[in-house]
Amino acid sequence: MSDTLQRLAAIIESRKPVNGGDPEKSYVARLLTRGDDAILKKIGEEATETVMAAKDARNGGSADKIVSECADLWFHSLVLLAQFGLTPDDVLKELSRREGISGIEEKAARKDTLREAEENPKN
Amino acid sequence: MSDTLQRLAAIIESRKPVNGGDPEKSYVARLLTRGDDAILKKIGEEATETVMAAKDARNGGSADKIVSECADLWFHSLVLLAQFGLTPDDVLKELSRREGISGIEEKAARKDTLREAEENPKN
Amino acid sequence: MSDTLQRLAAIIESRKPVNGGDPEKSYVARLLTRGDDAILKKIGEEATETVMAAKDARNGGSADKIVSECADLWFHSLVLLAQFGLTPDDVLKELSRREGISGIEEKAARKDTLREAEENPKN
Amino acid sequence: MSDTLQRLAAIIESRKPVNGGDPEKSYVARLLTRGDDAILKKIGEEATETVMAAKDARNGGSADKIVSECADLWFHSLVLLAQFGLTPDDVLKELSRREGISGIEEKAARKDTLREAEENPKN
Repeated sequence: MSDTLQRLAAIIESRKPVNGGDPEKSYVARLLTRGDDAILKKIGEEATETVMAAKDARNGGSADKIVSECADLWFHSLVLLAQFGLTPDDVLKELSRREGISGIEEKAARKDTLREAEENPKN
Repeated sequence: MSDTLQRLAAIIESRKPVNGGDPEKSYVARLLTRGDDAILKKIGEEATETVMAAKDARNGGSADKIVSECADLWFHSLVLLAQFGLTPDDVLKELSRREGISGIEEKAARKDTLREAEENPKN
Repeated sequence: MSDTLQRLAAIIESRKPVNGGDPEKSYVARLLTRGDDAILKKIGEEATETVMAAKDARNGGSADKIVSECADLWFHSLVLLAQFGLTPDDVLKELSRREGISGIEEKAARKDTLREAEENPKN
Repeated sequence: MSDTLQRLAAIIESRKPVNGGDPEKSYVARLLTRGDDAILKKIGEEATETVMAAKDARNGGSADKIVSECADLWFHSLVLLAQFGLTPDDVLKELSRREGISGIEEKAARKDTLREAEENPKN
């Protein structure tokens, strides 16, 4: 499982028109050809669908739908990364760099504190 | 890099209140305690921030911002999965199950066809 | 201009299948027939497109695009309201009920305070 | 009800720092001061919350929540418009200009057709 993202990224890379990807045959080549906005719109769509799937799962729906929508969300994230010359390893490295969850939590805590400071200058 | 998601998932799991996670000390424990809506709201937020980061990168901003926001998006996806008893391997397996990009493209193609059929019954 | 939302809501109402709306001829009838998820997905999409339009406008694009995407967002909000038996007047009444901006600001301030209390129990 | 949006827009306008709005006292002044990204993030947030409210309403929750979240979404749309020197009348005029629902449906139909053409070049 562990190298799935890297393998997908390689296939997406091969779908770039500059690498011979054919928009007539490949969804990814088509999406990359349509450009940034088409890809970003998919990020927004898949995030919304993930939210809906979770709400449905909590109300008797299948948790499989969350897995499927999350797969769509991550997949289109990979397309976005490819579009900007980035890789999943860049993201995984960033997640690692935050030194495990404690680093992430520190970052999240800083963000909260900053937001509060911004939103409530008197506090 | 390859096991970063699994490692993060294990740490998130340990932050569940039932596993001793302390909402006073941990951002993740706090988020899990606040429940579905708080987590889902973060999915929406981080997707929006990813979109903004990509727009900024295309207009002279740093691509690092995309990496950072994508890391936030994936991280909160992991929290969502944990909240519903799911794991990143479930998502990676689903991505793999689609038989590489061709399977994903078939799925995406089916979705497009289905949507058109739904939106344009006369076609 | 002032009754535009009410007029649109009346037309949307007439597009409900129960009121004779024809999904073969009308986009709105089709959307209402496809149901909640199709409408909610549009809310997510149009919000994302509004964000992209604003980013573009700030980088040399036309502000008209913001107007157009905001129109799409409000229009699909009206379809959502109709789907749940609600009207734009319900929303306008709520906005009014918050007693002008000060009421809204009080509400927003309460929300901020609440969120901080939730996210930072020690504060 | 009909001039609620215009009245709110006038109040938001008065909260601009250049018009004497005080970020220490006013949520709107604070939001305008924080700038584009803070406002756009709210658009994404409120859209997500509208989606969640609709899901909840369909599962036994109150429809009032949809009204409240839609009010938040429209309100922050007004702040966005103000930030870019636009008004709710610009949006209402655009909605009107589409010649009632038929114009809107024509536009939506064109968009569908265009998207299909883009996504399915062989069709």
